[in-house]
Amino acid sequence: MSSFSYDLQAEDGAARRGVIHTPRGDIQTPAFMPVGTSGTVKALYTDQVRDAGADIVLGNTYHLMLRPGAEEMAALGGLHSFMNWQGPILTDSGGFQVMSLSKLRKMNEEGVTFQSHIDGSSHSLSPERSIEIQCLLGADIQMVLDECTPFPATHEEAASSMQLSSRWAKRSQDAFLSQPHRKDGQALFGIVQGSTYEDLRRTSADALIEIGFDGYAVGGLAVGEGQAEMLKVLDFTVPMLPRERPRYLMGVGTPDDLVEAVRRGIDMFDCVMPTRSGRHGQAFTRFGKINLKNARHAADPRPLDETSSCPAARDYSRAYLHHLLKNGEILGMMLLSWSNISYYQTLMAGMRTAIGEGTFAAFVEQFKAEQLAGDLPPL
Amino acid sequence: MSSFSYDLQAEDGAARRGVIHTPRGDIQTPAFMPVGTSGTVKALYTDQVRDAGADIVLGNTYHLMLRPGAEEMAALGGLHSFMNWQGPILTDSGGFQVMSLSKLRKMNEEGVTFQSHIDGSSHSLSPERSIEIQCLLGADIQMVLDECTPFPATHEEAASSMQLSSRWAKRSQDAFLSQPHRKDGQALFGIVQGSTYEDLRRTSADALIEIGFDGYAVGGLAVGEGQAEMLKVLDFTVPMLPRERPRYLMGVGTPDDLVEAVRRGIDMFDCVMPTRSGRHGQAFTRFGKINLKNARHAADPRPLDETSSCPAARDYSRAYLHHLLKNGEILGMMLLSWSNISYYQTLMAGMRTAIGEGTFAAFVEQFKAEQLAGDLPPL
Repeated sequence: MSSFSYDLQAEDGAARRGVIHTPRGDIQTPAFMPVGTSGTVKALYTDQVRDAGADIVLGNTYHLMLRPGAEEMAALGGLHSFMNWQGPILTDSGGFQVMSLSKLRKMNEEGVTFQSHIDGSSHSLSPERSIEIQCLLGADIQMVLDECTPFPATHEEAASSMQLSSRWAKRSQDAFLSQPHRKDGQALFGIVQGSTYEDLRRTSADALIEIGFDGYAVGGLAVGEGQAEMLKVLDFTVPMLPRERPRYLMGVGTPDDLVEAVRRGIDMFDCVMPTRSGRHGQAFTRFGKINLKNARHAADPRPLDETSSCPAARDYSRAYLHHLLKNGEILGMMLLSWSNISYYQTLMAGMRTAIGEGTFAAFVEQFKAEQLAGDLPPL
Repeated sequence: MSSFSYDLQAEDGAARRGVIHTPRGDIQTPAFMPVGTSGTVKALYTDQVRDAGADIVLGNTYHLMLRPGAEEMAALGGLHSFMNWQGPILTDSGGFQVMSLSKLRKMNEEGVTFQSHIDGSSHSLSPERSIEIQCLLGADIQMVLDECTPFPATHEEAASSMQLSSRWAKRSQDAFLSQPHRKDGQALFGIVQGSTYEDLRRTSADALIEIGFDGYAVGGLAVGEGQAEMLKVLDFTVPMLPRERPRYLMGVGTPDDLVEAVRRGIDMFDCVMPTRSGRHGQAFTRFGKINLKNARHAADPRPLDETSSCPAARDYSRAYLHHLLKNGEILGMMLLSWSNISYYQTLMAGMRTAIGEGTFAAFVEQFKAEQLAGDLPPL
């Protein structure tokens, strides 16, 4: 139990049902990882996250290195104890948020220096420092520092960016293996880049496989290319990845994205969408997306979904949810975040069962039909 | 079980231990009622409120008549079902918030007209309409519409204001008795006014007792007069109230206020303080008030109070709470609101036990000593 491993249990077409074993517990795959940016899956208790069916959550290295700080977190016993989550945690490398959130960035071969978006203080991140931070946080699954190639990129830009990421991946692996804060059973994932170019994705995947990682992520997607383009990239990239390692599609996505990516052989996902949309009044349900702020819900006594196992979706009227959201009540954000995370986990559980039973195609058909049929008719 | 009654079980000095029976369940007194302004005790699930020990919550007629509206609430099945709270609910009359929140008020003998603080729409409130609204909401304990006399007030101002309240109390009672939406076992409380003047409080109390109510509130306190003045008013006002009816001190207060008022014979309280302060980073504990935003908590691995039965106070470090509050995380507001409501309920439970055992004086002494000793020393 003190080592990391992936157990592929069933395949149905390209879709895979498996289990990732970690010293902190098993992760049933395909898995959706709720995002706990700053040490909290926003507006949710960890009990709710776990009871909804999540085996693992994600923490953001960028946010946590700024507050409370990596060494400070280690002194407090690490991220698990800090946020009261005993299951596995995956942390990203921090690179993506440095590029999207921080100011005055300067990137070179060594790494990146930047100013905090919170207080303007100066920080730097290199492959080595990112791994050190992730070890100080105590992350069970760590990610190599890479450059998330912006979209669109020319072939030349994407190649140059991908090659930098490959060199950083090697440095990350070296740093990981020699990192004194690393614990038994912690894992490191590589990240395939290469934008939308098949030859670059191939070069990237080959380089990472040559280094050898515990799992492989597909990065640089969900950055504006659209679902059709994303799925095209997955169509040719996923088969490049080792069958015996978990495959993680970073930062994705909508329920339909998850289903389509699982269909193509992806095992892990993370996305802020269920919680962020929840805080803004959007519910994800088997009927599709529902905007609870819409006046048509104001007098509707029906719950979001009476068949849901989540109290938030089952035990409160749409009228009440509408009322809370219109009034800016915190409970509205709490309930919708809870309901959304539960829906995502229920969707993943449904896919896992279907793959195990060899009925994934029928599951997808039913999912699409329900989403297409849309929400209940107004009363 | 379909009627309202008060059962006085023990007295210890002026302090009283009792039970209010309502068709929706018993209320152990002295009781603290968490405030659910707009149909939610802010940032808390109703399960947490109940499990913390609250038997009853308060709803604000002013907020609910504006959103979702009284008739709209009735069509949705009433406030209990709306907010998913099955226990008793007390509603205020709406008068206090009309004076403190709304714009362009115009008051005369008939009642008050005002503009909503939300959208400027025009509304009116009279003793009769307030009762009708409270019945439409389905409130188990309803309050007469009164004028909360501002502080300070001259004897003449206070007398004139109190006399208007007395006339409105009679109209409220008449409206309550003839209100078609009223249900069996719903109760109506009168409110003693008269500012800080003993003779006016006497006149007010006598007039209300002559009308006859299910319970008696002391109003017009906690409006800037300070604790010493408030307790002086309680010293002479509480003995004017019938022994066999519950006594409710409106809008109070700090833990010390509660203890001092129970010592003087008060049975019921409501206040936004535990939830509002919680959202702003203030924790109420047996060590006194703690400002979690203070930097001295940033590296403190100790919980707020390891002896607490509330997970929020027991299972999260001060460092984590500090981190959440500094980052404006919703979970920080959730945890502190929960911890504060739990502390208030634990305090009430402690007072009830002590009164029942005849050891209230010792309880007060211990409470004061702990509060005086203050927070744990910094690590």
